[in-house]
Amino acid sequence: MIRVIMHGCNGKMGQVITGLCKEDPDVEIVAGIDVVDNRENGYPVFTDINACDVKADVIIDFAAAVAVDKLLDYAVDKQVPVVLCTTGLSPEQLNKVSLCSEKVAILKSANMSLGINTLMKLLKDAANVFAPAGYDIEIVEKHHNQKVDAPSGTALALADAINDARDNAYEYVYDRSQVRKKRDKKELGISAVRGGTIVGEHEVIFAGVDEVIEFKHTAYSKSVFAKGAVEAAKFLAGKPAGFYDMADVIG
Amino acid sequence: MIRVIMHGCNGKMGQVITGLCKEDPDVEIVAGIDVVDNRENGYPVFTDINACDVKADVIIDFAAAVAVDKLLDYAVDKQVPVVLCTTGLSPEQLNKVSLCSEKVAILKSANMSLGINTLMKLLKDAANVFAPAGYDIEIVEKHHNQKVDAPSGTALALADAINDARDNAYEYVYDRSQVRKKRDKKELGISAVRGGTIVGEHEVIFAGVDEVIEFKHTAYSKSVFAKGAVEAAKFLAGKPAGFYDMADVIG
Amino acid sequence: MIRVIMHGCNGKMGQVITGLCKEDPDVEIVAGIDVVDNRENGYPVFTDINACDVKADVIIDFAAAVAVDKLLDYAVDKQVPVVLCTTGLSPEQLNKVSLCSEKVAILKSANMSLGINTLMKLLKDAANVFAPAGYDIEIVEKHHNQKVDAPSGTALALADAINDARDNAYEYVYDRSQVRKKRDKKELGISAVRGGTIVGEHEVIFAGVDEVIEFKHTAYSKSVFAKGAVEAAKFLAGKPAGFYDMADVIG
Amino acid sequence: MIRVIMHGCNGKMGQVITGLCKEDPDVEIVAGIDVVDNRENGYPVFTDINACDVKADVIIDFAAAVAVDKLLDYAVDKQVPVVLCTTGLSPEQLNKVSLCSEKVAILKSANMSLGINTLMKLLKDAANVFAPAGYDIEIVEKHHNQKVDAPSGTALALADAINDARDNAYEYVYDRSQVRKKRDKKELGISAVRGGTIVGEHEVIFAGVDEVIEFKHTAYSKSVFAKGAVEAAKFLAGKPAGFYDMADVIG
Repeated sequence: MIRVIMHGCNGKMGQVITGLCKEDPDVEIVAGIDVVDNRENGYPVFTDINACDVKADVIIDFAAAVAVDKLLDYAVDKQVPVVLCTTGLSPEQLNKVSLCSEKVAILKSANMSLGINTLMKLLKDAANVFAPAGYDIEIVEKHHNQKVDAPSGTALALADAINDARDNAYEYVYDRSQVRKKRDKKELGISAVRGGTIVGEHEVIFAGVDEVIEFKHTAYSKSVFAKGAVEAAKFLAGKPAGFYDMADVIG
Repeated sequence: MIRVIMHGCNGKMGQVITGLCKEDPDVEIVAGIDVVDNRENGYPVFTDINACDVKADVIIDFAAAVAVDKLLDYAVDKQVPVVLCTTGLSPEQLNKVSLCSEKVAILKSANMSLGINTLMKLLKDAANVFAPAGYDIEIVEKHHNQKVDAPSGTALALADAINDARDNAYEYVYDRSQVRKKRDKKELGISAVRGGTIVGEHEVIFAGVDEVIEFKHTAYSKSVFAKGAVEAAKFLAGKPAGFYDMADVIG
Repeated sequence: MIRVIMHGCNGKMGQVITGLCKEDPDVEIVAGIDVVDNRENGYPVFTDINACDVKADVIIDFAAAVAVDKLLDYAVDKQVPVVLCTTGLSPEQLNKVSLCSEKVAILKSANMSLGINTLMKLLKDAANVFAPAGYDIEIVEKHHNQKVDAPSGTALALADAINDARDNAYEYVYDRSQVRKKRDKKELGISAVRGGTIVGEHEVIFAGVDEVIEFKHTAYSKSVFAKGAVEAAKFLAGKPAGFYDMADVIG
Repeated sequence: MIRVIMHGCNGKMGQVITGLCKEDPDVEIVAGIDVVDNRENGYPVFTDINACDVKADVIIDFAAAVAVDKLLDYAVDKQVPVVLCTTGLSPEQLNKVSLCSEKVAILKSANMSLGINTLMKLLKDAANVFAPAGYDIEIVEKHHNQKVDAPSGTALALADAINDARDNAYEYVYDRSQVRKKRDKKELGISAVRGGTIVGEHEVIFAGVDEVIEFKHTAYSKSVFAKGAVEAAKFLAGKPAGFYDMADVIG
């Protein structure tokens, strides 16, 4: 049984993780940290992390960037590994993460979903088979109509994973409507669809002669990131100091 | 049993239609017209249309633009309706088609596929339900890597069908990577994917609150146009003079 | 602006509808009814419907079967149309619904989703084009691993809609693994996939010669039923007494 | 440049491979073998394999079972590796293949498609990540309406690949309509859809909490097997005696 401190326990993601841990026999939240203590969580909640004297094997963090510095100091001091999921850290904070990871295990990843990270790994293998055989690679992503950036960071991360595996052979193409020309072998088209409340869909296509292979990931809610964080916590408990990411979790 | 003259019977599409008609109990090819008579078709072939004295209910045409003038004269003279599938007609020829359609039934359509034309009709109905309810509309099309234009003419025709039904409320968007902004209600995104030998895939998406409805058409070969032409021939036999298109066939 | 009474306002669906109405300029919830008044809804909540003296154009109901009798009496008495979404009514209650609909407008439907109901209508049109042209029809549905029935009621409703439009020409086939034989034209295969927490996906396929047309509906959460209820309320306000369903809403 | 002898060069698959090799700078067909020599292939064709004195690095075979014995003798005698794609070999012939593979490199596989074989490998890796994390696995395959067996051999091969990787933890389920019960963790559902002329579609689904990962393969024509054979030939040229299959090609 892995003992977890939930940092940011009363936020949306903290609550989702609280729910997941209740149904998972391998993990137990033994304490929560949050600025407010207004929920029935079934575990003690501390409004100041330094007041938390509960022994734990790992910390899961889904809080606010402003709380990350104290969290890192606490983790180093108490020697508790951290699954760091808060985004929007400043360059100084990212540097501090790096320095602290020399003293305690820290896991941080662009996307916490188990599915996306597994896909990222398999796509490298797929690209190394299909690209030399002349298959074209394209990505289509779909998100809700409130998203301001396109393509999604995850689509770019998937493309980068493929490009890394292929000596950066590809140039990303976002628009084909402005030129009349055949597709070049070097192109990797990325299309962004926006509509409704779509949480996130990513489709990677390998198209060859009379054959198409598709890898598709669909998220139905943000709780996929919660699920990934719990799996990451199980992995990180007991690990030596160092910087880890989701690729390490899926092996 | 509808009696068909196949104009351009020894070309690729003519042969596909010959095959389809052999298996269809409702139609029979009673004569073919082509510049060469080098196949075992099971029906008489004339290298000059004016030599053809076989009675027929309808002509299916998949030949070359150069042969269309004589075909139209023959159709008017013999009073046989024509399903006109040859593309690349000159403005003078298009004008002649229009004039001849006052004297004999002529059917001509941008896309002969039964599926695409049915979709075009259903999408108008769908748009009239979903658009007022706030659903976003997007189109993704996929074609082979030799196609020089993007988006496809069919994708634009599908978008136009929707836009016609909605008082031209939409502006087509081909690229979202250059700006950071939320999707506007007026947008209708059209994405073009290119790869391998994909014959043609069109997907129209209506995305609302926690709900997505997709309409998708996949062509596996160009014989879908042959199939559409045969259905059009069944429809056109016996029709009075006039200009028809596939929307009339599907009712 | 349509004035709505939300019956069952503090339940899960009532809260979703409360949220939707806040963002919809065409509707306003002017009062709520629920056994408890424990939320900040921004409108008055009555724990007894008979105490509610707020004027409204329509009632949306997502409550419990036990509350439906008083609701119907109130609707008839005050002459306010009702969108009745509570399920599990007894035969006596269903009979009362029928009787009350002679005195006030009542809308009730097997599935409140706008998307599914629109699809059902379009599928009839599609079947009437594709079936005579020899296309095969198949349905695949996907749901979560806790669902006990297969295929889903909605999949059967979609199949029935097609079968109704085609003089009941089809026999439903749920398993092809036990016989070695070609597909019969009369078959309409229905496949049920179960896994994870999939909310509900329905795909209807028309497969012809080298052509496939797919109609697909994906629900991301149960709030699609909330959205459908709001659209139904807009439709029902001001309607004369009678029994309506979602097919009327989509026109 | 790899020099290829095309065994069965004037058959349908032989002609497809001839076309592929013309466009591939890494391979050249230097001779063909067939019972008739009636095509313009651009390379010498021998009606008796033993008359073929052209030096080659590898033989690709897509001929008839009756021709395989002489082919194997020739391959051993001349020490030229063989990609053996002819199906329907007798038990005696399969035994001879086995014996000959001790003297020359022979490659034979249940499915020659590069895509399906790569998918089979990646699915094992995926199953080893997703199955321990509690994801459910399901397969849906779609084929034309003339196919007599269900599910397809390829669908079963994909399921077996997953089951092999997971200590045969799964029982295949073909029909869920006869019982009312929740899905068991041990189930691996396989659904077979039949319609039109669909060449072959296979979709493997991993469904977890609010997340679905799909792997999909679509064949547009049988030439995917030709493409796989060419890649296999590139791999096999220069290899020592032994029995190989497509899993070796994709590494």
